[in-house]
Amino acid sequence: MPELRKDPVVGRWVIISTERSRRPGHYTPEATNGDQSFSPFVTGREEMTPPEVFAVRPDGSERNGPGWMVRVVPNKFPALEIEGSLDRRGEGLYDKMNGVGAHEVVIETPDPEAQLADLPVEQIQRVLIAWRERMRDLKNDSRLRYALVFKNHGAGAGATIHHSHSQIIATPIIPRMVQEELDGSRRYFELKERCVFSDIIDQETGEGHGRRVVSSTARYIALAPFAPRFPFETWILPVTRRAAYHTIDDAGEMMELAGLLKDTLGRLNAALDSPPYNLVLHTAPLGEPDLPYYHWHLEIMPKLTRVAGFEIGSGFYINPTPPEDAAQFLRDVGARA
Amino acid sequence: MPELRKDPVVGRWVIISTERSRRPGHYTPEATNGDQSFSPFVTGREEMTPPEVFAVRPDGSERNGPGWMVRVVPNKFPALEIEGSLDRRGEGLYDKMNGVGAHEVVIETPDPEAQLADLPVEQIQRVLIAWRERMRDLKNDSRLRYALVFKNHGAGAGATIHHSHSQIIATPIIPRMVQEELDGSRRYFELKERCVFSDIIDQETGEGHGRRVVSSTARYIALAPFAPRFPFETWILPVTRRAAYHTIDDAGEMMELAGLLKDTLGRLNAALDSPPYNLVLHTAPLGEPDLPYYHWHLEIMPKLTRVAGFEIGSGFYINPTPPEDAAQFLRDVGARA
Repeated sequence: MPELRKDPVVGRWVIISTERSRRPGHYTPEATNGDQSFSPFVTGREEMTPPEVFAVRPDGSERNGPGWMVRVVPNKFPALEIEGSLDRRGEGLYDKMNGVGAHEVVIETPDPEAQLADLPVEQIQRVLIAWRERMRDLKNDSRLRYALVFKNHGAGAGATIHHSHSQIIATPIIPRMVQEELDGSRRYFELKERCVFSDIIDQETGEGHGRRVVSSTARYIALAPFAPRFPFETWILPVTRRAAYHTIDDAGEMMELAGLLKDTLGRLNAALDSPPYNLVLHTAPLGEPDLPYYHWHLEIMPKLTRVAGFEIGSGFYINPTPPEDAAQFLRDVGARA
Repeated sequence: MPELRKDPVVGRWVIISTERSRRPGHYTPEATNGDQSFSPFVTGREEMTPPEVFAVRPDGSERNGPGWMVRVVPNKFPALEIEGSLDRRGEGLYDKMNGVGAHEVVIETPDPEAQLADLPVEQIQRVLIAWRERMRDLKNDSRLRYALVFKNHGAGAGATIHHSHSQIIATPIIPRMVQEELDGSRRYFELKERCVFSDIIDQETGEGHGRRVVSSTARYIALAPFAPRFPFETWILPVTRRAAYHTIDDAGEMMELAGLLKDTLGRLNAALDSPPYNLVLHTAPLGEPDLPYYHWHLEIMPKLTRVAGFEIGSGFYINPTPPEDAAQFLRDVGARA
């Protein structure tokens, strides 16, 4: 069973894999880069994955057979295990608990070559719906407090399988970065009685501004944040406050979001020659969907520089591209259709 | 002038380079990897760097000429600029200030090929003394609150010059990760009236423990932390509390530290085939050297996996090697002399 362990100084939780411990020799490039030409995710190879937990099957086809458009399966090599109790316990001054949680793979298309940005908007919408449906299901498990949706695109961003996919890790704790956002936005709300994300959107779209806006629709906005950690870091937020992603009910809203995501990824691909990127969905904890001070949002981080260890070790980021310049490039480049 | 900008939600400061903004094409691998075979840091090329701010010259040779053993110079392409006032100001709800600070390069040896772990202990001691002397000087600048010493070793860890060097960035704000440590250890002290780092060392070296200890001397200990973010992450701490690195006065203490650092890097090199790594020195703020609840320490993070963007975006780390296993490997491997 993996373990969740808490750093006794800063309170950061990490997942420690105790089952399949990697020995030193397992970190060579050969050992970590799998064969990317073979996809275990294509139609007809459904038996290569654990049984599906969700699928979009417009033709009404049977579970775990062909006919799906998007398919969600448990990760064959999960970071956390779904069976078991949390069993919180101490070890002297340290705290730990069992590594209980879900680790799922969202197969975004049956096509082993097409990448997310290339999919038709209708197909991207199916991916967004799969994320939502899995969150709605996972929130019924009282052990789980958070469902983290993320995507590693390209080997440089940590993807080991070329076939387009995203992942969901549901955890009994709230990830640090999300907790910091929740704490920070609650403090702002207590001080101002306004949502900080609403204030940001108001300021970014106000008269004489717009320098950091990449593009927008009626309900969503893509922008370069004021203090980005990475060059060309881009966020997508709903204009009207909605704390939890999984509460989106309207099909038109989902389609609009799919369109803006495709547009944004297309602009990044055109400006930066299809870079590797990480995408992380920040949303409210599963059990607190109605927070008055939070907007769910997508953070897209192109992986352009290799200087990551220092930044992780210090929390100090040096960004050589001002967000105003990045947004200008992305506005000018248009979307590569 | 670069800008320091603060994220309005989580309060994270970043450095935005507004002078030499990188355009999209400047992020290709060709553009970011310089020619590593040419070293601007060797003896005889002193005029290729800005004038030195510190040097160890046992032969009493003249500044900016040959004869040095360790040499510290301002970075030719600094992230922050040393001239100017902070000029804190707002932009609507955002906060920013001028990017005032120091950015220096510590040239660790005149030899363009030798790496830190390979240097004689006496030479490593000179490097450690250079770090200390620069901190003692930088603390006289009232604009600067923190001096961050770090080292990127190997291209995979972000080094662009092969010649062995470390860097110092002195900032008008305290880096986030250090602030979190200061806050966390102060809270522990308020609760327990003990230093959390002292308690950690007591527990790690207590009877029946020692599973996470890599090696130790009379005054220092190298250990794998209980909740490491990265495989083979290793910390070096003074056994007896000392909050600020720059207060080390005793030559014997420095030599002992140099010996343990060489030993630890040697073990990592032997176990992991000389991996790229990042090293970060965490120490008390320049103006608060006597904190009763903090130990300065070195964090060494081998760069073994590429999955960094997701972790940075979520603050959630998955570590496939338990620290008990890592410490065992490093104890067994011994130091490659």
